[in-house]
Amino acid sequence: MPGPAELLVCVKCRRGREIPEDDRRPGQALYDALAARVAPEGLRVTPVECLQNCEAGCTVALRGGDRWTYVFGNLDEVSHPDMVLDGAARYQATTDGLIPWRERPDHFKRNCVARIPPLTPES
Amino acid sequence: MPGPAELLVCVKCRRGREIPEDDRRPGQALYDALAARVAPEGLRVTPVECLQNCEAGCTVALRGGDRWTYVFGNLDEVSHPDMVLDGAARYQATTDGLIPWRERPDHFKRNCVARIPPLTPES
Repeated sequence: MPGPAELLVCVKCRRGREIPEDDRRPGQALYDALAARVAPEGLRVTPVECLQNCEAGCTVALRGGDRWTYVFGNLDEVSHPDMVLDGAARYQATTDGLIPWRERPDHFKRNCVARIPPLTPES
Repeated sequence: MPGPAELLVCVKCRRGREIPEDDRRPGQALYDALAARVAPEGLRVTPVECLQNCEAGCTVALRGGDRWTYVFGNLDEVSHPDMVLDGAARYQATTDGLIPWRERPDHFKRNCVARIPPLTPES
């Protein structure tokens, strides 16, 4: 069983919209929707203040252990939470973070913002 | 003196151009230009195969220690190497990865692709 992974959710995301100060932002709504579901075993869901992918939000990142870190954008807080958790579970099931292409959610295939390699012993 | 930092350079970047198989890609040229310069103290320059910011390359990432990781895009292999190393030195000089806004290179201000928080003790 691969080690734990973390799903980071940008809770400050406005997704390009003007949001009244007292309203709930799309990023917060996405986090709330994810936190309300049962997380896959070995996955922690963490709110983050701004992943700075503001022009293509909502945004999440997946990381943990010796895996590549991935950032995914263009997420919708209503239609995408189940897909995000499914993709996160498939990510957690890997040791290197590389979800096999055929298993990868289509949204992840088309909306990868960036990825970062795992730390090497010299890093 | 803050600990070491790492500058990751995507050497596979085509920057949206078609590159003959035997030609040197813009990403490789950017890495070569950076590696040919004297790196700031405490900074390691590392080639990486695809940071998957392919639509807005060339791309680098900065990380290390307890700092936020930053990804910057739209880099030019000819005009930007000195700016990248200057920004990397300013990044390395921080403990949290947050270069003070007034010190931040303009290109970094406008071309941040994403950032990832440092690992927390529970991560």
